[in-house]
Amino acid sequence: MKIALDAMGGDHAPREIVRGAWNLCRETGQKVILVGDQEIINKELELLESCQGLEVAHAPEVISMDEAPATAVRRKKNASIVIAAELVRSGEASALVSAGSTGATMAAALLRLGRIKGIDRPAIASVLPVEQGTTVLLDVGANVDCKPKNLLQFAIMGSLYAHKILGLPTPKVGLINIGEESSKGNELTLGAYPLLSNSGLNFYGNIEGRDVFHGSVDVAVCDGFVGNVVLKTGEGLAAALMNMIKKELQQSGLARLGAVLSLPALKNLKRRLDYSEYGGAPLLGVNGVAIVCHGSSKEHAIKNALIRAKESVDTGLINAISASLVGQAREVDIANEC
Amino acid sequence: MKIALDAMGGDHAPREIVRGAWNLCRETGQKVILVGDQEIINKELELLESCQGLEVAHAPEVISMDEAPATAVRRKKNASIVIAAELVRSGEASALVSAGSTGATMAAALLRLGRIKGIDRPAIASVLPVEQGTTVLLDVGANVDCKPKNLLQFAIMGSLYAHKILGLPTPKVGLINIGEESSKGNELTLGAYPLLSNSGLNFYGNIEGRDVFHGSVDVAVCDGFVGNVVLKTGEGLAAALMNMIKKELQQSGLARLGAVLSLPALKNLKRRLDYSEYGGAPLLGVNGVAIVCHGSSKEHAIKNALIRAKESVDTGLINAISASLVGQAREVDIANEC
Repeated sequence: MKIALDAMGGDHAPREIVRGAWNLCRETGQKVILVGDQEIINKELELLESCQGLEVAHAPEVISMDEAPATAVRRKKNASIVIAAELVRSGEASALVSAGSTGATMAAALLRLGRIKGIDRPAIASVLPVEQGTTVLLDVGANVDCKPKNLLQFAIMGSLYAHKILGLPTPKVGLINIGEESSKGNELTLGAYPLLSNSGLNFYGNIEGRDVFHGSVDVAVCDGFVGNVVLKTGEGLAAALMNMIKKELQQSGLARLGAVLSLPALKNLKRRLDYSEYGGAPLLGVNGVAIVCHGSSKEHAIKNALIRAKESVDTGLINAISASLVGQAREVDIANEC
Repeated sequence: MKIALDAMGGDHAPREIVRGAWNLCRETGQKVILVGDQEIINKELELLESCQGLEVAHAPEVISMDEAPATAVRRKKNASIVIAAELVRSGEASALVSAGSTGATMAAALLRLGRIKGIDRPAIASVLPVEQGTTVLLDVGANVDCKPKNLLQFAIMGSLYAHKILGLPTPKVGLINIGEESSKGNELTLGAYPLLSNSGLNFYGNIEGRDVFHGSVDVAVCDGFVGNVVLKTGEGLAAALMNMIKKELQQSGLARLGAVLSLPALKNLKRRLDYSEYGGAPLLGVNGVAIVCHGSSKEHAIKNALIRAKESVDTGLINAISASLVGQAREVDIANEC
């Protein structure tokens, strides 16, 4: 099983991307197709000991972060992300990983692989480190204006991801809302609540913003606007708090000594909060395994994303989502007949 | 100038509410009308030295947190929050403060005081402690489904609040969105962006979730669903991080010692993040000064909210909002004529 990796995407491409693949290949023998400018990638590979499982697929073009994703994907047929998606479509690769433009990755995956039958709109899921373990948050940006049925589909996909990849037997699913009562919410959440209640999922009910990072549920569902704001608010506040702690700890000599002694503990925490441990964000609903990484990903993050991609293939995530949607559709049919 | 204070609202009512008023009255002579059950309030007052500026307005009923606000306000005409709002309407008091149900306070204020002309929907503003000072976030929950013009009105009101109460000459206003470019967003933010651009406000453009707690802008505007989720995500993450730090610091003896030495610094930080320092959340757009406090408010928070209420009256906040909206309407008229 091979994974197609966009070697040209991300702030630290191609070096850190190539090294992420190289590390995993050396450790486990995982086969990776590095997609991008052949000459550039080969130069990077020459700096490393050879590794049998790595091959290169030439792609002379690159889609940059500031290009309109859909247009760029249509126009640049030889862009690294487009060729990577094409490798999955043709069956040469089983999964796709990129730290380049999220929009372009989504567009390339949609155009080449299509959607899973029964999914109206794919979502981007993010695995967040929270107080009690991790929480799958989705959608975090693919769909800014959603309908209730989209949230139901996100919930089904997020739940299967938490089950298959995080190993939770019956993941608890929460709907992000502004109050716990089922009567609270905006048009979207009021419409989604009964769908989730009747979905057969382990629906916990509404959760509030404060519950997300506590870890009250395993899967937190919302539209892509709210999810993006939650994700980035979390990132921003964590950084702001760390800066504020640092500043406070520099105020007095005793506090400074305290800070030095606490350093390993704070570093532990920082590692726990580090996105690069969590292996990228899966695009769920696309008819194939596709994972986007943070633009600032270094080799460790890329390696973890490749591992997640492999797990997604090995556990049959896409088929499970597909089968679950057939089940849902049947239940809705039965409900309609009654 | 008297402030009407709902003495029966909040988790720690009436004791902490009464004491908040008493403290301020003793220190500054500020007159406060304590609204609620006469007998209960007088018992509380008997425990304290007398203070000339305090008086009691009898209100035999209370609206609890779980009652439907609008219905309860209509039915319980003798509820403390209703009578407090009535005191402002009649001119006996100049402002209203409550730590009871936010919904009931909003409903009572709307019913008794009405809206400022030109405001379609009042908003709840929250003054957040951020890395660089404070940021006024609105709406944080009054309006879950908004139109672009609502966001423009929130921006005008938030900007005037930051100017009049926080003393900023030309507050920077940001629109919470999922990207910085003006082309990013959902229907609502795409519609609001040009309105804000042409508003004459000091519009900074779109901000992302990560900018909110950094303090990139003085006023952050969004619909009440997003604002509520941002506010509560912030609260929840700050608490989760503090717990995680505590846990990490207990892992080794050295880290424990470090923690002890850093304690005053961490306490400083905690105080800086404490909502009770920031004097409650103003209901902006209501035709009168009304401030809601956190349900868990103790005397210090109540005292600060009363101070904010007094400042809002003294600086003529309501008239300023009203005048600014007349100006806006005129600009729109001129634009339409051109």
